[in-house]
Amino acid sequence: MQCDTLWITCRLATLDPTRPGLGIVERGVIAARDGRIVYAGSADDAPAFEATRTIDCEGRWITPSLIDPHTHLVFAGDRAHEFELRLAGASYEEIARAGGGIVSTMRATRAASEGELVQAALSRLDALIAEGVTTVEIKSGYGLSLEDELKSLRAARALADIRRVGISTTFLGAHALPPEYRDDADGYVDLVCEKMMPAISARGLADSVDGFCEGIGFSPAQIRRVFEAARAHGLPVKLHAEQLSNLEGAALAAEFGALSADHLEHLDAAGVAAMAASGTVATLLPGAYYFTRETKAPPIAALRAASVPMALATDCNPGTSPLTSPLLVMNLAATLFRMTVEECLAGVTREAARALGLLNDRGTLEAGKACDLAVWEVERPAELVYRMGFNPLHARVWRGQ
Amino acid sequence: MQCDTLWITCRLATLDPTRPGLGIVERGVIAARDGRIVYAGSADDAPAFEATRTIDCEGRWITPSLIDPHTHLVFAGDRAHEFELRLAGASYEEIARAGGGIVSTMRATRAASEGELVQAALSRLDALIAEGVTTVEIKSGYGLSLEDELKSLRAARALADIRRVGISTTFLGAHALPPEYRDDADGYVDLVCEKMMPAISARGLADSVDGFCEGIGFSPAQIRRVFEAARAHGLPVKLHAEQLSNLEGAALAAEFGALSADHLEHLDAAGVAAMAASGTVATLLPGAYYFTRETKAPPIAALRAASVPMALATDCNPGTSPLTSPLLVMNLAATLFRMTVEECLAGVTREAARALGLLNDRGTLEAGKACDLAVWEVERPAELVYRMGFNPLHARVWRGQ
Ligand SMILES: [Zn+2]
Ligand SMILES: [Zn+2]
Repeated sequence: MQCDTLWITCRLATLDPTRPGLGIVERGVIAARDGRIVYAGSADDAPAFEATRTIDCEGRWITPSLIDPHTHLVFAGDRAHEFELRLAGASYEEIARAGGGIVSTMRATRAASEGELVQAALSRLDALIAEGVTTVEIKSGYGLSLEDELKSLRAARALADIRRVGISTTFLGAHALPPEYRDDADGYVDLVCEKMMPAISARGLADSVDGFCEGIGFSPAQIRRVFEAARAHGLPVKLHAEQLSNLEGAALAAEFGALSADHLEHLDAAGVAAMAASGTVATLLPGAYYFTRETKAPPIAALRAASVPMALATDCNPGTSPLTSPLLVMNLAATLFRMTVEECLAGVTREAARALGLLNDRGTLEAGKACDLAVWEVERPAELVYRMGFNPLHARVWRGQ
Repeated sequence: MQCDTLWITCRLATLDPTRPGLGIVERGVIAARDGRIVYAGSADDAPAFEATRTIDCEGRWITPSLIDPHTHLVFAGDRAHEFELRLAGASYEEIARAGGGIVSTMRATRAASEGELVQAALSRLDALIAEGVTTVEIKSGYGLSLEDELKSLRAARALADIRRVGISTTFLGAHALPPEYRDDADGYVDLVCEKMMPAISARGLADSVDGFCEGIGFSPAQIRRVFEAARAHGLPVKLHAEQLSNLEGAALAAEFGALSADHLEHLDAAGVAAMAASGTVATLLPGAYYFTRETKAPPIAALRAASVPMALATDCNPGTSPLTSPLLVMNLAATLFRMTVEECLAGVTREAARALGLLNDRGTLEAGKACDLAVWEVERPAELVYRMGFNPLHARVWRGQ
């Protein structure tokens, strides 16, 4: 059988759901043709391949490459000073006066050109890529005007032209209220639904639509309007839900068949049941939990018991999670949320693909899927979760290369 | 004035204690000759230099290179599986049966050759080096026999021959009780004091002596004997103190003029006062605090009020802190201990040097000190503390090169 590349003498964590646990194959082989996996499994059962290129992995582990299914990677400006002031004891008022908060990121993002946004995001993207990430979800939501939301989404799409990476874009107009709508939240939601959504949809700039359902964000009724507009444009939805309080956002998301509900620290039993019924993924963001010193963890045991799929993401953003390490995300999830090694590794591969609606195309090592691989210099997959601040990536493969 | 290398167009965080805060110089210059700093300060006040080599830093920030003043870098074996089992709900008994715990590290370390220990430590050392570390403290303490403690310290010293780094070695015979002394702790302390200490001292293999003062470690009376032996051999001491309970180890360490007392979660006011009086550094280990899910933080406010110097370290070890990122250490210290940006940066430079008794030689950007620099691709020093899982090191300079 002809193939382009053959990886031999490797151990596989396939994440194939038809195999138990991590789907481990101790004596593994992967074959790729035209960027897709044609075989991933035991060397003993493999057909005879004739390969253009054969790579001896010398016993290293191969997993599906990593997927970061929730980021705010495209933004301009700097919030390190705000962090510094807060540690030095400054009040929120003093920080606002010093130009802090989400509005400062909005101002900097509005002031930046598309090219400047691309450059700013690139160093963050490169940090993800260095840890074996090949698919990144990127949200808008710091522009908060038609023009600036379009610009942010174009910048996100442009990243896929300059790096070997898949980008999934999300329109998050309902992220925060821009100052010009301070006293007219419903008017801003009109703008999101009636002006931004059609323009973004017409240009094909968004793969999905998101919102921030929270007391300091948008109400369930406002989010419902956003979701109805998304449905009218044929766009799947997801939601920042139950991060700071329980507004039953996850159930609302489930009602619309959302891809995912994200954060979920304050999710209750009814929300878990609704997500289970709709097949909505729980995308957990332990970086934000850690950085904001939240003490209420998401209901992992209840999600596990209800078989709600759990994905993990960096939530990379300047205000609450300036994090660009999916390896650290796994350690945070294990340490702070007591997720198991299997759950953590599935969370940044298979379940992350599911959260983006891309599980048919990637996220596991199975014939027919994109040949996106991470080759690791470790003795066992658990090391990827256990170690902190260490990157054992040996090679990253995107579309077979 | 003649010099070997000149760094120009840089911003400096000198950590010079005679300057306020981080000792910032916005338009800075550093000149080095024979591996030492001959000038570090304002470009405006600098003498005219004739340099063999001039490096334009294009506005980047330079800090003293980083120092990790508390590690257990030299060990063999793997504890990732133990971590995995614990997350999967295994009891301590089951983990012990599966070969976990410190005894498993001791067994693997005893079984390893000196060369194997060097190789195992090297990947961990390289991770530190990649973040701008130039001085690392390394403890023995997994050999727990004369021969294996000697081997571990030789391995630690050997690392300095294969990487451009300074290694400070610490004899930690009083780390844990080896199984052959299970019922004779005092007999093991005899061995530490009467056999190991003289042999290690005679070979110049240790720069200092440490112990683990804890209910599950050694009693204050046993540690006192170790410290007396160290004093007899002219070796400075330090102590793992007040990590899990308050045995007044810090005060004991202070009585012996210890370089540092480390961990300190359960330190009380008397301990703080004793450390302040003796000039003993508080070496804080937020990685272990985080990884073991400790909830009692060290008394930062009391240490700050008493002007006890605070250093930060990875505590890199397989059981309670598999951490090899000093940048993450700073973020953990800020997030979990509410240390300020200034305290964090001083903790991995100036105060880390002080904790090793090396402040006269390194740890700040001052004329006369070793030219050990870290050049960073950041807009402000606070970014080094604020970001998570991101390494903006642009260049690392050791001894002027
Ligand atoms: Zn988010
Ligand atoms: Zn230690």
